[in-house]
Amino acid sequence: MDQLQIFSPATVANVSCGYDAMAFALESLGDEMTFRKNDSGQIRIVKIEGADLPYEPNKNVAAAVAQRMLQDAAADFGVDIEIVKKYKPGSGLGSSAASGAGAAFAINQLLNNRYTKLEQLKYAMFGEEVACGSQIADNVAAALYGGFVLIRSYEPLDIVSIPTPADLYVTVIHPQIEIKTEDARNILPKEIPMRTAVFQWANVGGLISGLHTADYELIGRSLTDHVVEPYRKKLIPHFDALKSAAMDHGALGAGISGSGPSVFALVKGEETADKIAAAFDKVYKNSEIEYRIYTSGIAKTGVTLRNK
Amino acid sequence: MDQLQIFSPATVANVSCGYDAMAFALESLGDEMTFRKNDSGQIRIVKIEGADLPYEPNKNVAAAVAQRMLQDAAADFGVDIEIVKKYKPGSGLGSSAASGAGAAFAINQLLNNRYTKLEQLKYAMFGEEVACGSQIADNVAAALYGGFVLIRSYEPLDIVSIPTPADLYVTVIHPQIEIKTEDARNILPKEIPMRTAVFQWANVGGLISGLHTADYELIGRSLTDHVVEPYRKKLIPHFDALKSAAMDHGALGAGISGSGPSVFALVKGEETADKIAAAFDKVYKNSEIEYRIYTSGIAKTGVTLRNK
Repeated sequence: MDQLQIFSPATVANVSCGYDAMAFALESLGDEMTFRKNDSGQIRIVKIEGADLPYEPNKNVAAAVAQRMLQDAAADFGVDIEIVKKYKPGSGLGSSAASGAGAAFAINQLLNNRYTKLEQLKYAMFGEEVACGSQIADNVAAALYGGFVLIRSYEPLDIVSIPTPADLYVTVIHPQIEIKTEDARNILPKEIPMRTAVFQWANVGGLISGLHTADYELIGRSLTDHVVEPYRKKLIPHFDALKSAAMDHGALGAGISGSGPSVFALVKGEETADKIAAAFDKVYKNSEIEYRIYTSGIAKTGVTLRNK
Repeated sequence: MDQLQIFSPATVANVSCGYDAMAFALESLGDEMTFRKNDSGQIRIVKIEGADLPYEPNKNVAAAVAQRMLQDAAADFGVDIEIVKKYKPGSGLGSSAASGAGAAFAINQLLNNRYTKLEQLKYAMFGEEVACGSQIADNVAAALYGGFVLIRSYEPLDIVSIPTPADLYVTVIHPQIEIKTEDARNILPKEIPMRTAVFQWANVGGLISGLHTADYELIGRSLTDHVVEPYRKKLIPHFDALKSAAMDHGALGAGISGSGPSVFALVKGEETADKIAAAFDKVYKNSEIEYRIYTSGIAKTGVTLRNK
């Protein structure tokens, strides 16, 4: 294989109760990327559409991941990369993860499937380090594995795929304000009350169990977050109104996507997802803030090959 | 129905990572109890074997639960109760929960199934309040529902039954020392580092997922406890030796049962359970402490009717 085009999904990390441990991938929102072998031996970013991202191979996440993989494999070829971003970076929807996971998947293909999925994941996590300074696994794992993932452990890295009920959909609103991941982290307490921690792991247990049994009500009851949301929601204009709108229109639950500013609602059925999109729109349409709203199924697989 | 004999199982709460949120019931260890209608209108404890428990109806857990249920139902009969304890109170194996859940189940039968399971649970939780001062749900829920349970929430009370892999067994050692639940609680910190909390809920997610998919390895990897065990293990002589013995002999994982002093190991297969029983015995046989060792399957159901 000398060339391939892929789709790398947007991802929602944390999923209310599962801070730093859970994420899921979207079916119909994500980046298109093309990877083409070249004889120069170099990684070249030849096109970036839809976002203002660096072209330098050591600063561009996809290029950095590709470069390291090719170096480690002592490959005798370079790669030209085209990136078409379908949603904006800084959204809390794993934009850098889509780039990193996409590159890890594609370069592995060009290297004739040399690496295991876990190895690809580690390269994608290196991409997260390039993007934000630390090797966070949640978004890249969801982008690579698809569906829902649990990061059970970092040392050793242990990713658990959790089944996705067939009728689960998501509505996301991305208010286009900037929240730095660093600020979103610094706002959180370093310690939490034991009692609150118990609530949280009981809900993680409920969410995981609900996903396994397609118990939508249980999923909904478990989508509560006593740990992170009370702090981070202050960074997101109209968060409470968005959440109320989601719940009033039949969402199973709603919360902050990753470190924000995007807000997601999980729902049963596409029709409900559309209703909540309209409700989100009503909350934001008279604000000064630009925003985008997306509805999507949950991705059954992670990064996928596209037919040219 | 005027009379019934039941088996009410011993239970292991917390299950390493699931402090205050998870528990499971044992198949072959538990109490035998007999309930017989009488015309006096009174609750009478007519026999207690195997433990030194109070006979006064307001102090005896089974009697207190029975009394409240009959009162609430304005029943026109009383009940004679016989209790045969097969394991000692203060074990960390839910002795009071077996009494309370057994009474809730049996009195509900004598009242022609008047109460839902959740209502029975609430009566059994009242029994826990009589025993230890607070309405803890974990042991009583496991005793009533059987298998593994998750206490997703107390307000409202939300119990989730988690499937049990067919080949899962448990070995328990009960060192017969006294640990007061209150002391075991006071030794714990009131706050925990966020990082530790994340580890814990990631493991709860792994344990729940492993139980759903009968992934014994995942169950084992998830049976880690960074929150409670480091503190409470100090109260249990030879804890580290017991845990090492379990792991050396093929346990999936091991930890403290409830607030101790019992230590449990979860294993795949009855043969391994027996090996670990022997290994536990080796650790304790030269100590000054009396102990009992049990092996058991996981109870498929909770409290059950016995044929007379």
